[in-house]
Amino acid sequence: MPKVSLTHAAAALSRRLERLGRVSEERGATTRTFLSPAMRRATALVGAWMRGAGLATRVDRAGNLIGRTRDRRGARTLLMGSHLDTVRDAGRFDGALGVLLPIAALEVLRSRGLELPFAVEVLGFSEEEGVRFPSAYLGSKGYAGLLGRADLRLRDRDGVSVGELLSAGGRRSPPGPAHPRRELIGYLEVHIEQGPVLGELGLATGVVSAIAGQTRARVVFGGRAGHAGTTPMALRRDALAGAAEFVVAAEALARRRPPLVATVGRLTARPGVANVIAGAAELSLDVRHPADARRLAACRRLRDLGRRIARRRGLAFSMDVVQDNATVACSRGLTALLARCVRGRQGRSVALASGAGHDGVIISRLAPIAMLFVRCRGGISHHPDEFVARRDLEAALAVTVDFLARLASRFPR
Amino acid sequence: MPKVSLTHAAAALSRRLERLGRVSEERGATTRTFLSPAMRRATALVGAWMRGAGLATRVDRAGNLIGRTRDRRGARTLLMGSHLDTVRDAGRFDGALGVLLPIAALEVLRSRGLELPFAVEVLGFSEEEGVRFPSAYLGSKGYAGLLGRADLRLRDRDGVSVGELLSAGGRRSPPGPAHPRRELIGYLEVHIEQGPVLGELGLATGVVSAIAGQTRARVVFGGRAGHAGTTPMALRRDALAGAAEFVVAAEALARRRPPLVATVGRLTARPGVANVIAGAAELSLDVRHPADARRLAACRRLRDLGRRIARRRGLAFSMDVVQDNATVACSRGLTALLARCVRGRQGRSVALASGAGHDGVIISRLAPIAMLFVRCRGGISHHPDEFVARRDLEAALAVTVDFLARLASRFPR
Repeated sequence: MPKVSLTHAAAALSRRLERLGRVSEERGATTRTFLSPAMRRATALVGAWMRGAGLATRVDRAGNLIGRTRDRRGARTLLMGSHLDTVRDAGRFDGALGVLLPIAALEVLRSRGLELPFAVEVLGFSEEEGVRFPSAYLGSKGYAGLLGRADLRLRDRDGVSVGELLSAGGRRSPPGPAHPRRELIGYLEVHIEQGPVLGELGLATGVVSAIAGQTRARVVFGGRAGHAGTTPMALRRDALAGAAEFVVAAEALARRRPPLVATVGRLTARPGVANVIAGAAELSLDVRHPADARRLAACRRLRDLGRRIARRRGLAFSMDVVQDNATVACSRGLTALLARCVRGRQGRSVALASGAGHDGVIISRLAPIAMLFVRCRGGISHHPDEFVARRDLEAALAVTVDFLARLASRFPR
Repeated sequence: MPKVSLTHAAAALSRRLERLGRVSEERGATTRTFLSPAMRRATALVGAWMRGAGLATRVDRAGNLIGRTRDRRGARTLLMGSHLDTVRDAGRFDGALGVLLPIAALEVLRSRGLELPFAVEVLGFSEEEGVRFPSAYLGSKGYAGLLGRADLRLRDRDGVSVGELLSAGGRRSPPGPAHPRRELIGYLEVHIEQGPVLGELGLATGVVSAIAGQTRARVVFGGRAGHAGTTPMALRRDALAGAAEFVVAAEALARRRPPLVATVGRLTARPGVANVIAGAAELSLDVRHPADARRLAACRRLRDLGRRIARRRGLAFSMDVVQDNATVACSRGLTALLARCVRGRQGRSVALASGAGHDGVIISRLAPIAMLFVRCRGGISHHPDEFVARRDLEAALAVTVDFLARLASRFPR
C-alpha cells in the first residue's frame, strides 16, 4: 500500500465532507435529523468509507454507525467520533468532521504500516442536535446505555415517541452500554470550535479543557384565546405577549452576566393565526455557563421572571427542564497527551472551554474523554456558511495521527 | 304547509349550528379553512338545507355557496349571509349563524304563505378568516368581483397560490361580480357580537352602525443564525429577540390608546430549533380602530418602532401591509329599518361599532349593507366556548323575519 500523505488525506477528507453535506432532507440545504431517510443514506455512505478504511461496520439499535478495527471482541478500545445528524440548514463540518477525520487518520496510519496495539471504534452518532425530539444526545445516550424512561417517552411533532422508534425491532427495553468501562481507553472527539477564539489567536487547533454545562427547558405560557378585533387590550390574557416579554427578559439577564448565554430559538403560538389572540405560547430555553452554580442560579432567576410575568398578566406558566448537563471536565491524561501533539505541530497549545455541548458530555460517563477543537471561519456554525480551511483540516489530521501514534507507543507490545 | 313557530324554527336552527360545528378538519375541534375538504362537506350540508327551504343552489368559482329563491334572473335581489369558514379551534356561531339563520327565516315566511316581492340570495362565503392565506375576505371578494392580482398571488404554507386554486377549472381571469349593482336591494348580515356590550346592556340583539377599519401586516425581522452555546450575547443578531421586543412594544402602544387594538397572533422563528439563534422571525400584526386616521397613525408608529428596534439590534426589518380596510359605515336606510324591527321585539335598539371585520366590509362596495349583532356569552369568540342562548337565537330570527316582511311591504305589488 503506498504511503498516504497528510496533504493528500486532508484533500480526500475535504471532498468527503462536501459529499456528505449534500445528503439532506431538504433540497439546497444540509438537514439530517434522527432516523430520517437522509440519516440512513448518510449512514450507508459513511459506512462504505469506513469499510474502505478496513473497519467492520454495524448500526446499533439507536441508529449509531460503528466502525471497528478488525480484532478480537473485548480488546482495549479507543473510541473516536462525533455525530452525523445536523440542525436544519446546517453547515457541513459540525459533527461530520469528527466522524470522517478519524477514518482518514486510520487510513494514513494503515498506509504507513503502523498497526495499533489497541482496537479503535469510530462512532457516527445518530442524534446530537435535539432537532426532532425536545432533547439532545439520543445517539450517544443509546451507545452508552444511558437512555432513560423520560427519553423514551419524548415525542416528535407527529406524536411518535423515541421508545416506539427504538422498539421497532421488537425489543422494548432501552439498549445497554456498548462496552464495559474496563475495555475503554478513552474517547477522542474532533470538532469545529463553533466560536471565535482560535481565529483570534491565529491557531488551527486547540485542546478543550471542559464542556460548559447546559440546561434546556420547555417554557409554556397559557392565556385565553379571543377575537383580535373585539377584545379590548385591558381584558386580554395574551399568551404570546407574555412569552415575548419573557424572551426579552431572558436576553437582558444573560447580557448582564457574561459568559452566561440564554437563547430562545423556538417560539410557537396557538392557535397561531393573525386575528386570534394567542391562548397558549411555548418556547425553548437554552442556558449555558462554564460554572454549574452560575448556570443553575440563572435558571432559577429565569423561572422567577417567568412566574412574575405570568402573574401580572393572569397567565399560567410552566418551565420544565428537559435536559440538564453539568459542566464536564476532560481527562487530564488524554488531554495532556493531546496538548503535546498540538504543540508538536503548531508550537503552542491553548486550553478552551467549550460553550457548545458535544457527544463527549455523554460518553464521559462511560470513558475518559479528550476533545480537539479546529478553527472555523468567523466562529460561524449551525449555518451553511460554516467553513474550515483545507490547511486546518490537515493540521487537525496531523494532530490526530500523532495522538494515535503516541498513544500506541505507550502500550506494551 | 303547517305554520312554523319562531320557537320551533330557533330550535331547529340551534341543532343545525351544532351539526355544522362538527364538520371540521380536526377531530374534537371546529376548523374549516378555505377550499379544504371540510369546507366542501360544510357546503354540501348547508346546500341541502337551502334546497329544503326551497332555494336553488350553486357554488361559484371562489367556492361560495349561493342559495337563491326560485325566480327570474335579474330580479331585484336582497343578499343575506356570512361565511362558512372558521378560525382554528373555533366556535360554532361565528359566520355559520349568518348563513343558517336566513335559511330559517325564509322557512318561517314560506310556512306563513308570505311570498316576497323580491329575490333573496343566501350566501355562505368560502373564506373570511384569513387562516389559509395571509389575507381575509377571499370569498366575498370573489363574489363581488373584487379579487385583485395581489390576492391571486398569495400563497399558503404549501406554496399553493389563490390564483392556482381558482384557475383549477381552466379559467385564469378572476371572477367578475355576481350581480350588477342595480339589481341589489342590499345585504343583511346577522352575526354574533364577539364582544361584551350587548351582554352588559342585557339585550339579545343590536344594530351595527359601522365596521371598524383594520390593517393586517406581515412583519419580518432578519438577523444571523448562530450557535446558541458559542455566540456571546454581545455578538448576537437574534431575530426572534427583536421580534419579541416588537410584540411587547405593539401591545404597550395599543394599551395607551384605547379603543385601539393591536394583536400579534402568529410568530415564527427560523430555523426554529432550541440550540440555534434565530436568523429570521416573522409575525402577523392586526391593528383596528373605529377612526381610520387613528388606525393609520398607529400603523405608522408601529413601523417606526420596528425600524428603531431593528436598527439598535443590527437586524433587517420589513412591514408589508397585506390588507387594509377603511371603516365601513352601514346603510342609513336599511339600518333604520332594522332598528325599527329590533325595537319592535325588545323595546330598545342600540347602535354598536363592530371591532371585528365582516364580509359586509367587502359587500359594501357592491350594495348597501346592514348588520344585526346577536349577544354571545361573555363576548367570547374564536374559541370553542363561543355560545348564543336559544332565546337569543329566537330573538334574532324574529327580527330577521320582521325585517323581510317590512321590506316586502315597501315594494309595490
